[in-house]
Amino acid sequence: MTELNSVRRFGIVIGIREQCIAEYRQLHDGEGVRDLLRLANMRNFSIFLHRMPDGGLYEFGYYEYVGGDYAADMSALEAHPRNIAWLNSCDRMQIPLPGTNGWSEMESIFFNA
Amino acid sequence: MTELNSVRRFGIVIGIREQCIAEYRQLHDGEGVRDLLRLANMRNFSIFLHRMPDGGLYEFGYYEYVGGDYAADMSALEAHPRNIAWLNSCDRMQIPLPGTNGWSEMESIFFNA
Repeated sequence: MTELNSVRRFGIVIGIREQCIAEYRQLHDGEGVRDLLRLANMRNFSIFLHRMPDGGLYEFGYYEYVGGDYAADMSALEAHPRNIAWLNSCDRMQIPLPGTNGWSEMESIFFNA
Repeated sequence: MTELNSVRRFGIVIGIREQCIAEYRQLHDGEGVRDLLRLANMRNFSIFLHRMPDGGLYEFGYYEYVGGDYAADMSALEAHPRNIAWLNSCDRMQIPLPGTNGWSEMESIFFNA
């Protein structure tokens, strides 16, 4: 199976605290965990920022998974000390949606290559 | 310039009426304007659905533009009779964010190839 055939596309969302935007941008301009995301077979990762009608700021993420074992790759990523430190930095800037404790996965309803 | 070098990534958002979800899904399962989106140099187009903390359902779109003249391609797309009919079908199902009259473009704050 080629990467093209096995790619899975993810859309994720989370709130972000107004007062943390500048710090979050600065953090994400750097090298951060870019290498670990690629090691976890995550590609073409974008994060977008938008103010929604409730007045809150939200982040919307998009990435493609090109590996063969998503659960294993995510477990390895989550266990990596540098990723744990990274998430600790981000966690205090973000506001998970009610009833969740991190990024929420959205449902894909359309895809056109 | 190769496609890889010139690609621009877009994130867009709009509300959708609860009672229109089934019809919207069905419409987007078909051929619709998939050919016109590709003609307009839009690639890798996903739409995700999620209920946000305000209780409303929203659609989040992601696509990549691989052409050389975005404004011209969008103008040609918007003027195409089949696309006009398509947008008319979608418009009554969607709720643009306050102060807008269609999909809102989000700001990209992170990208990792």
